Amino acid sequence: MAPPAFSEDDRHFMRVALSLSKRGLGNVWPNPSVGCVLVSADGVIVGRGHTKPGGRPHAERVALDMAGDLARGATAYVTLEPCSHFGKSPPCAAGLIEAGVTRVVSALTDPDDRVSGRGHAMLRDAGIFVDVGLFCDQARKINEGFLSRVERKRPFVTLKLAATMDARSATRSGESQWITGDAAREHGHLLRANHDAILVGAKTVIADDPTLTCRLPGRAHQSPVRVILDRWGEVPETGKLIRTASEVATWVVTSGAKFAELSEKFEKTSVKVIEAGCDGDHLDLHDVMQKLGDAGLTRVLVESGGALAAGLINAHCVDRIVHFVAPALLGDDGKAMIAELGVERLVDMPRFTRTSVCVLGEDIAVTYDYKTG
Amino acid sequence: MAPPAFSEDDRHFMRVALSLSKRGLGNVWPNPSVGCVLVSADGVIVGRGHTKPGGRPHAERVALDMAGDLARGATAYVTLEPCSHFGKSPPCAAGLIEAGVTRVVSALTDPDDRVSGRGHAMLRDAGIFVDVGLFCDQARKINEGFLSRVERKRPFVTLKLAATMDARSATRSGESQWITGDAAREHGHLLRANHDAILVGAKTVIADDPTLTCRLPGRAHQSPVRVILDRWGEVPETGKLIRTASEVATWVVTSGAKFAELSEKFEKTSVKVIEAGCDGDHLDLHDVMQKLGDAGLTRVLVESGGALAAGLINAHCVDRIVHFVAPALLGDDGKAMIAELGVERLVDMPRFTRTSVCVLGEDIAVTYDYKTG
Repeated sequence: MAPPAFSEDDRHFMRVALSLSKRGLGNVWPNPSVGCVLVSADGVIVGRGHTKPGGRPHAERVALDMAGDLARGATAYVTLEPCSHFGKSPPCAAGLIEAGVTRVVSALTDPDDRVSGRGHAMLRDAGIFVDVGLFCDQARKINEGFLSRVERKRPFVTLKLAATMDARSATRSGESQWITGDAAREHGHLLRANHDAILVGAKTVIADDPTLTCRLPGRAHQSPVRVILDRWGEVPETGKLIRTASEVATWVVTSGAKFAELSEKFEKTSVKVIEAGCDGDHLDLHDVMQKLGDAGLTRVLVESGGALAAGLINAHCVDRIVHFVAPALLGDDGKAMIAELGVERLVDMPRFTRTSVCVLGEDIAVTYDYKTG
Repeated sequence: MAPPAFSEDDRHFMRVALSLSKRGLGNVWPNPSVGCVLVSADGVIVGRGHTKPGGRPHAERVALDMAGDLARGATAYVTLEPCSHFGKSPPCAAGLIEAGVTRVVSALTDPDDRVSGRGHAMLRDAGIFVDVGLFCDQARKINEGFLSRVERKRPFVTLKLAATMDARSATRSGESQWITGDAAREHGHLLRANHDAILVGAKTVIADDPTLTCRLPGRAHQSPVRVILDRWGEVPETGKLIRTASEVATWVVTSGAKFAELSEKFEKTSVKVIEAGCDGDHLDLHDVMQKLGDAGLTRVLVESGGALAAGLINAHCVDRIVHFVAPALLGDDGKAMIAELGVERLVDMPRFTRTSVCVLGEDIAVTYDYKTG
């Protein structure tokens, strides 16, 4: 079958849907963040929607509710295949059929076992024209977290690094506030807003007692889950993350040996304790990521110290790096942004692909994606 | 006196002169790199020139020779005050007068004691209209090396750094070729071409036995002086830099204690031995720079290891950093791009101002100027 031919109008409306779909990132896990635009036969947008916080209503439902009777005869542009299964709400494919939509342009087939082509098939069976694949790369990229969880059984992991140009995150005496400037810090908070969770190690929690919330005006409600890796059960109950766990979700991942002890310690708090396997003295980072995927997380932002960062890199758990570089130097006696990696030969060094360079006041932010193969 | 009003034509022709002036950078020391454009009364360029390799003929002479009789009645655009003193050639101010130029637009007064306003005065005394100051900031920037030598008695120093994003210049086993890619290396050779000299420490020479020449096609003749800092007189006569000293100038800077020994060691070579003061176990880097200025150098590119780089930074001898960043990681066990700096507090860390970000294939190059005050 020849691939569908998409018109300029199709491309335009799908771009609008893709743009809408980004709005849910960080707030809809474990669901994908979808955008939907309904366009009448005479080319007017009659409904638009994106997945709402918590993952529902779905984008199609929002757009259909907005369009009402105007959905009849309309074309729906969706950034992901409409769902076909009864979950906590009726399937979107059924909703589109019922509303009288006559054509659906979809960016991507949903790899979720419960959908996986059934949504598109249900629409076609109802006599709706269905064209799939418009801007599928962009749609994949926006939902790389959701797709990672479905396809790799773990969240998409972004490592945030903030350091001087010689890659030091603190002076030798430990002073680290502030190496980067206001614009870089705001950008960091924006990253928090569009991730499901922030991951740190117990050492960082003990040393810095951070809050790890999104402090952008109007975005406090988008604060992600705070996940602490605590192999030895060392995180104090008096720390800010534990004390504020009823306001912003806080999870502690620990070893089997410490699970019972920590569950009891945090029994009267809102802290969720998760058990993961160990690899010697450290948590098995692959298993940690699998457990975080099991718990529903699709996009995890790592804001750890250099040791956990190095562990995640060597475990091939880092999919992206956002590297904030301040125009200053601290020297080899400063604190290294990445701990030892044990690389002997250049051919073995972890390599990335630069995807963007962004000027943020005096600093820059460079984004790299992990280079596979 | 009101500042001169420059026309759009003036601005255009001075831009041409500034552009020409850059061509001499790296090849005209100890002279400034000047551009000159001669424009006839009807707005036609009748002569153009820039300082020639070795520092003469001067830009004005080149442009006047090209214009011949057409220089009569013309306006001369010069990026630096024409010289007024008899050196190895007659003064350019006299040349402009003799040729019948009727107006001179000059970007900058030459701070050299032998000129310092006398060139402009000589022209005015001959009845020529002289307007000074058009694009003076740009002209200062192009000749920052020449101006540094005149005003600070030392060359302008650029530190080249090439490393992974975590600021490692080699693996822990010492492998460093190649961390950055072809485009970054070519850019590095371009830097060599427009600098008067490359500075390295004896350790780098002993460890890597580099050639430090400009290997861009057609630019080999622009290879800068190779300057080796060799406090202890350790550089072997068998190294490439010493063996090729008759083809590309090679200087060794050493302590008073080793000066006689090295002078004898290199007696039969073309190597020039320079004595500088010491500061304990190290050469006094301020004095080294002063001696390099005395020897005529205006633009020095440092391609050293991390220890000398750190020494130069702490001695406030680094005016610019060109930082090549490869999209890879080597970890804290890799070789640090900058050695210890002894910074305790963030307020004391050396700070720079980013002036450009340049994409070079997979790598980027970020340029920073030292932040004074």
